[in-house]
Amino acid sequence: MRKFMDDNFLLKNDAAVKLYHDYAKHMPIYDYHCHLSPKEIAENKSFKNITEIWLAGDHYKWRALRSNGIDEEYITGGASDYEKFKAWARTLPYCLGNPLYHWSHLELKRYFNIDSLINEDTADEIWEKANELLGTEDFTVRSLIKRSNVKVICTTDDAIDSLEYHRQIKEDKDFGVKVLPTFRPDKGLNIENEGFIQWVEKLSEVSGIKIKSYDDFIDALYNRVEFFHKEGCRISDHAIDDMFFEEAREEEVDTIFKKALKGEKLSQVELAQYKTMTLVKLAKKFSELNWAMQLHIGAMRNNNSKMFKQLGPDTGFDSINDGNIARSLSRLLDKMNSQEGLPKTILYTLNAKDNDVLGTMIGNFQDGSIPGKLQFGTAWWFNDQKDGMEKQMISLANLGLLSRFVGMVTDSRSFLSFTRHEYFRRVLCNLIGTWAEEGEVPYDFDLLGRMVQDICFNNAVNYFGIKLDD
Amino acid sequence: MRKFMDDNFLLKNDAAVKLYHDYAKHMPIYDYHCHLSPKEIAENKSFKNITEIWLAGDHYKWRALRSNGIDEEYITGGASDYEKFKAWARTLPYCLGNPLYHWSHLELKRYFNIDSLINEDTADEIWEKANELLGTEDFTVRSLIKRSNVKVICTTDDAIDSLEYHRQIKEDKDFGVKVLPTFRPDKGLNIENEGFIQWVEKLSEVSGIKIKSYDDFIDALYNRVEFFHKEGCRISDHAIDDMFFEEAREEEVDTIFKKALKGEKLSQVELAQYKTMTLVKLAKKFSELNWAMQLHIGAMRNNNSKMFKQLGPDTGFDSINDGNIARSLSRLLDKMNSQEGLPKTILYTLNAKDNDVLGTMIGNFQDGSIPGKLQFGTAWWFNDQKDGMEKQMISLANLGLLSRFVGMVTDSRSFLSFTRHEYFRRVLCNLIGTWAEEGEVPYDFDLLGRMVQDICFNNAVNYFGIKLDD
Amino acid sequence: MRKFMDDNFLLKNDAAVKLYHDYAKHMPIYDYHCHLSPKEIAENKSFKNITEIWLAGDHYKWRALRSNGIDEEYITGGASDYEKFKAWARTLPYCLGNPLYHWSHLELKRYFNIDSLINEDTADEIWEKANELLGTEDFTVRSLIKRSNVKVICTTDDAIDSLEYHRQIKEDKDFGVKVLPTFRPDKGLNIENEGFIQWVEKLSEVSGIKIKSYDDFIDALYNRVEFFHKEGCRISDHAIDDMFFEEAREEEVDTIFKKALKGEKLSQVELAQYKTMTLVKLAKKFSELNWAMQLHIGAMRNNNSKMFKQLGPDTGFDSINDGNIARSLSRLLDKMNSQEGLPKTILYTLNAKDNDVLGTMIGNFQDGSIPGKLQFGTAWWFNDQKDGMEKQMISLANLGLLSRFVGMVTDSRSFLSFTRHEYFRRVLCNLIGTWAEEGEVPYDFDLLGRMVQDICFNNAVNYFGIKLDD
Repeated sequence: MRKFMDDNFLLKNDAAVKLYHDYAKHMPIYDYHCHLSPKEIAENKSFKNITEIWLAGDHYKWRALRSNGIDEEYITGGASDYEKFKAWARTLPYCLGNPLYHWSHLELKRYFNIDSLINEDTADEIWEKANELLGTEDFTVRSLIKRSNVKVICTTDDAIDSLEYHRQIKEDKDFGVKVLPTFRPDKGLNIENEGFIQWVEKLSEVSGIKIKSYDDFIDALYNRVEFFHKEGCRISDHAIDDMFFEEAREEEVDTIFKKALKGEKLSQVELAQYKTMTLVKLAKKFSELNWAMQLHIGAMRNNNSKMFKQLGPDTGFDSINDGNIARSLSRLLDKMNSQEGLPKTILYTLNAKDNDVLGTMIGNFQDGSIPGKLQFGTAWWFNDQKDGMEKQMISLANLGLLSRFVGMVTDSRSFLSFTRHEYFRRVLCNLIGTWAEEGEVPYDFDLLGRMVQDICFNNAVNYFGIKLDD
Repeated sequence: MRKFMDDNFLLKNDAAVKLYHDYAKHMPIYDYHCHLSPKEIAENKSFKNITEIWLAGDHYKWRALRSNGIDEEYITGGASDYEKFKAWARTLPYCLGNPLYHWSHLELKRYFNIDSLINEDTADEIWEKANELLGTEDFTVRSLIKRSNVKVICTTDDAIDSLEYHRQIKEDKDFGVKVLPTFRPDKGLNIENEGFIQWVEKLSEVSGIKIKSYDDFIDALYNRVEFFHKEGCRISDHAIDDMFFEEAREEEVDTIFKKALKGEKLSQVELAQYKTMTLVKLAKKFSELNWAMQLHIGAMRNNNSKMFKQLGPDTGFDSINDGNIARSLSRLLDKMNSQEGLPKTILYTLNAKDNDVLGTMIGNFQDGSIPGKLQFGTAWWFNDQKDGMEKQMISLANLGLLSRFVGMVTDSRSFLSFTRHEYFRRVLCNLIGTWAEEGEVPYDFDLLGRMVQDICFNNAVNYFGIKLDD
Repeated sequence: MRKFMDDNFLLKNDAAVKLYHDYAKHMPIYDYHCHLSPKEIAENKSFKNITEIWLAGDHYKWRALRSNGIDEEYITGGASDYEKFKAWARTLPYCLGNPLYHWSHLELKRYFNIDSLINEDTADEIWEKANELLGTEDFTVRSLIKRSNVKVICTTDDAIDSLEYHRQIKEDKDFGVKVLPTFRPDKGLNIENEGFIQWVEKLSEVSGIKIKSYDDFIDALYNRVEFFHKEGCRISDHAIDDMFFEEAREEEVDTIFKKALKGEKLSQVELAQYKTMTLVKLAKKFSELNWAMQLHIGAMRNNNSKMFKQLGPDTGFDSINDGNIARSLSRLLDKMNSQEGLPKTILYTLNAKDNDVLGTMIGNFQDGSIPGKLQFGTAWWFNDQKDGMEKQMISLANLGLLSRFVGMVTDSRSFLSFTRHEYFRRVLCNLIGTWAEEGEVPYDFDLLGRMVQDICFNNAVNYFGIKLDD
């Protein structure tokens, strides 16, 4: 019997304990993919109460609340912050077995030094203590980041973003944490979505390029890539909800693009042709600039149209898609590779059924130029829990080189989420420690400790090639 | 080393043992989905020998026999009951690792107090002892049910069934077990199947509604829903072998329906349009009456056409389908939800690759009205074994609220299958007990014991809302 | 803590240890599927250095090298054998967690008695020692086979192969190992591939049958089946990269075949019709001759067209496909079965998501004629590692009869790969041993030991029916 969430939480043997405490724990954090607000970092926001920092905007918790029979009033509705916090405290005991149970207790423990089990009985005491602390300097956004030993944060930014907040953050020489943008041109890829035409207009504006043709459009996108590059960006990110691949000639895509600008409806094939060519062209540009390209594959979003009308996107109504991806993804990467434009690429899947497909897909395009040029990205979103992480790492280990893995990202909107790196590291150390204890790898801490530290931090430093001390 | 199937079978640590013996074991059984014969319950059938109660009709065992090289003569053929039993006893030692090995020993142990390993050497002794016991009062159908501590049984009944046996059972005030029908209108959904027209004729007859149009058809179905409701039914069940979703206007579906009545062939799209609208309309009705709707997704039936001609359906020639279900299922549930007609819904899958899809799908439509309105149903059919159950529960725990799970069903045709609830409870207690031992949940038996008892029984009581003592 | 790869490697409890050392270890090897070169066996090849026997042609290692950032020069390029070996030694420590780490150390240990960890520091010492040994009689191809306790090897041979080397091997009465061909007509099935017409011409030549029609073509194929049969072949093998099933009349397929011979392009449906009928016709022939038919389902090959142009097929650019297979596979097997021509069949999948589909599919067509007529084949290629093997065996155990499993194959091009049978046996013994320790099967070594020995060797002997001492 082990105490709940003690120092050796998730570490089930001596080797795991040693790997975590002696090698992993003190490594800095390289959070190369998250959804933190650069504005809030620039302004060094502070929070008025624990509901604001912990529940507002956290659609993971919202889903749990709804599943527990809590009325929307107490989730996104008009109830007071105190009432919302109580609803959450009442719900958390029903989350046993869900990562929220671990995350929530770990966050209170690490940032607030609160060690109680969270439930209706302890809710008031936690509310008081946490809110008091939130008024102190230790709980501003920048303090939280620095206390978490973070060296790099890569936010996620619309390709037309001004990046003004990134510049503001950069100007503060005392902060010492790199906060860099990530280039996300999804709204330019999703030609079928409402708002595409307006987005193209804005793209034209910010790039200063008049967009009359597909060529102009690509010029404008390239212009933005260069602008992002100048601001320190070295990574792109792309949501691929449904995998696509269709060949087309440039003239065909030009026609498709012009149809879209006129508001005409496009066929499934035309959509795929447009997206394929656009992403291939972007990849070539990323490749020239030595960026890394992230593909997040397999989300199915906004499933509940009633709630979408009420609350909009990213409010807890997304789930896991199950499309077949192997063939299209292979063709897409091959197309990039054949045109000398396959950048460093990180493939994430939301459906763990794809783990082995990705674990082997990356091997098809490793070219010896750098270790792990193609990466199988860490367990993402719904998979961001112990079992999901283990599955991703075991799949990668069996099918590729776990040693070359660039590791964990928070993928989070919350400044309390850096504890997920701790969680990941514990799972990682337990996996490798267990192998060591069972004689499946040498019981050699030089070897294993280096591997752990590489995955925690060093691999990302080498992979992304961002200078840490300029 | 542990004795085979001792008191702590499947319970691998102290917390698991305590959870099972102190909390789970004595909870009553709420078997909300099975295929028991209401006629046999009404008539309180008894069995002439162990082959009749144990092998006749059990297609799980038939598959194992065929896989073991046993001739059909000794399975469904003309061999004597004694010979068939011997063939099974000879086969069972080859079932090591298969759930049949556990189920068979557990059933003999719990009901017949037989503790021997089953094999050719022990076959005669078991045959004698079991047959002797089967002649006693303890082994009538009702005795078996009562000895199993069952409170509720929901059978599965064709929408045109007279439910006469349910009424007979209800009239016997001494029995004390609720035996309620489940509304299964599959034959009305499967418009492409032989026999559809005849089924519609019978539906017309039993409902007293002349069916000339799709509107009439829906009226007749609603009439049956109300009839079932009056007889205590609160649950529907639907086999969705291939997931479907296609929008259509009412007039289109009326045309499709009329084509079918004339025996004309329908396109795949027409089939999907018809099924979509019919299930959406039924769901609305279920929702009004506060029923729970079960969708059993992903079986592929009657694969062996030679044996289908010889033996008919449900004879051991079904297997697991692998269709993509996420998109269509999402659209179907959303359609129901948008029209204020999404009832309490339980989603089962036969392919464990869908576990995470279902585990996240339910979250899209939880609306806070009751805890766990959408349920990810228990591991079903081929997944109804230790690994399958664990996978389903771990997936549900990671992606939703295991605490709110309505738990196990036998899904069985056999009166000896209630031991599967014991099996499930051992797996459940072992899972949660292991978390407790490893410090992943608090070592707090008030908390964990309540969770276990809820999943064993209480959640189903609350969820289905059927009064237990009227 | 356990020493890396000690005597009880992968055996985690006493029962596992006993099962392996007392029952499994000394069983001979029946390698019924591999890609060894009959020519090299006939000529009793020896190797000039460890790079030649270990790295040349091993695309598993090539992938790992590329993933580790090693330039192609040191993989398939012009670097010296010594340099290539050094690159591999430098890479192996980065393979922790990958089966290559185990395989490589196990092969050096068993064949070369080298016990050092492989890395840059030990590379020279290993290079010297291994190369010295490779010059001795113990390291010719035949010595390696005999030292591995192999009784049967089934190579994989194009249907038009002369089988001259198999005859040569057979003539050497002293060798004592059966080396039999496997009939692989893929080039005749893949009508869409370049080279089809030439292949048909060669088929005509070797069969002596003029091929003008589809009937002639089938006659010629049957002629080859009979030729292979005469040479001792009892097994066929088929790569089914994409599952297919389409019905057609003979005349239609004749037309399709003639179009292909004229170099005309075929539709997807035509391809499927052709392949379906051809495989069904072959199956009927195999069935008459009591052969076993192997279907290897789900590889996606030659993903990297740039490297394909440079290096050709089988050079490490293949990966796992994710097509849906259940429906088509069911229809294909049913078609064979309905026409009394379903032979003994072994279904392999490259995508573990299909495990349960195959585990249940085989049950649909078991006919009681022999135990395990339909087999779920062992974990293959990318799944040929501890986790993959365990998943396949657990799936088979849960859904069928593990006891009747015909067990492991090397599927390898290397004469050092027989250690994979050792690896498999350790995983098998650990699985069953763990069940025994935990009370999930009887702690009865007569029962469990027999099961283990059957799976290691006896089942294959009985299943394939090849006389071992003629």
